[in-house]
Amino acid sequence: MSGALHLVGVGPGDPELLTLKAVRVIAAADVVAFPRKPGTDSMALAIARQHLPATAERMPVDIPMNPDPAPAVPAYDACADAIATHVDAGRSVVWLCEGDPLFYGTAIQLLDRLAGRIAVTVVPGVTSLTAAAASAGRALASRNEVFKLLPAPLPDETLAGELASGAAAVIKLGRHFDRVRALLADLGRDGDAVVVEHATGPDERITPLRAFAGDGRPYFSTILVGQAAEPGA
Amino acid sequence: MSGALHLVGVGPGDPELLTLKAVRVIAAADVVAFPRKPGTDSMALAIARQHLPATAERMPVDIPMNPDPAPAVPAYDACADAIATHVDAGRSVVWLCEGDPLFYGTAIQLLDRLAGRIAVTVVPGVTSLTAAAASAGRALASRNEVFKLLPAPLPDETLAGELASGAAAVIKLGRHFDRVRALLADLGRDGDAVVVEHATGPDERITPLRAFAGDGRPYFSTILVGQAAEPGA
Repeated sequence: MSGALHLVGVGPGDPELLTLKAVRVIAAADVVAFPRKPGTDSMALAIARQHLPATAERMPVDIPMNPDPAPAVPAYDACADAIATHVDAGRSVVWLCEGDPLFYGTAIQLLDRLAGRIAVTVVPGVTSLTAAAASAGRALASRNEVFKLLPAPLPDETLAGELASGAAAVIKLGRHFDRVRALLADLGRDGDAVVVEHATGPDERITPLRAFAGDGRPYFSTILVGQAAEPGA
Repeated sequence: MSGALHLVGVGPGDPELLTLKAVRVIAAADVVAFPRKPGTDSMALAIARQHLPATAERMPVDIPMNPDPAPAVPAYDACADAIATHVDAGRSVVWLCEGDPLFYGTAIQLLDRLAGRIAVTVVPGVTSLTAAAASAGRALASRNEVFKLLPAPLPDETLAGELASGAAAVIKLGRHFDRVRALLADLGRDGDAVVVEHATGPDERITPLRAFAGDGRPYFSTILVGQAAEPGA
């Protein structure tokens, strides 16, 4: 009887994009924990639901999701302690993560708190990034191209500097959508950009950025930006 | 009877990191095509082998893999034509891709040649990038951090410019390994960097960059570079 915490990526939305390993580890769990924004359902749980063992304890964890990370700190602290107690008692605990656990994921908070204290394994998953490319039917990057992940809350000058070269995906759009759209237009980088919402999920929608209507505030969305034109081209 | 080409990501190496969808699509294939470097076995085929239907035609495609992409052009052209002939005859053709099809993958060459000519679908897969993070037990990026993919064949000045900020993964190391290691040392970015070889595969090895011995030329490998220190920190 040896417990462990398994940080399991469940992929971008389509339940068929779970890996065989994720299915096996989830099906063997004693406790299945998952983050949720207070008052909402957990998307990670919805994706993995059909694989949860009937006997497993469900452990929803309310995480305040704000621009300011400070309010989430006590929630992660308490969650880490509760998980450690289960693992010390020999239980297998799964933490469900949308996409991949270590790519802008909530699991990073638990890894920081629990690595070295209890056994932790990571099951990588399909990210919303490559899912967005698959849904849009276009390459993210090829050959010797630079590719950048750019969180939308970054300041304009940081985003503009990084967008001067290379292909990119702008993530975490939400209330920053209109600002990022204006910035990409100013930079002349909006011509081939597309907005991918809810990649591979039931609400998937793909729209050229210039055709995106109104004051969209899509949360589960990504803007894909192609290679910058060669100087002088 | 309606044919299609399915570009299927088979993940980074561990056969258990195939998705449920990849398994289903491969198992229904009439033709299973896969790239290989002349004279070698196909890694993508090795990963997916147990799911290939006994009745499916195997279609190995020899692709010259050189720094100069020109010799590969006729190989991809001929391959695209052969696939189109199968699809026009109503067959389901699967193209096996290591990692994800549209993230520095061979499938991009086929998408460029065949999109609009025949039906093409993409099944995203787990990339070697997130697999490397899982194996190393460290986050790639979190919160509002910039993350960059940097192919090692890029010139020193391009790599140095991009590595001035943000976390990064340097990919396609091969014969560029020693040059990239020296560059990271010059930039003071080697302190927390790790080399991940063959992530999730049987030959997986994880080594701090500064401890990596000798003139390594690891091909299936990635160097993970953490966040740059804050100026003045």
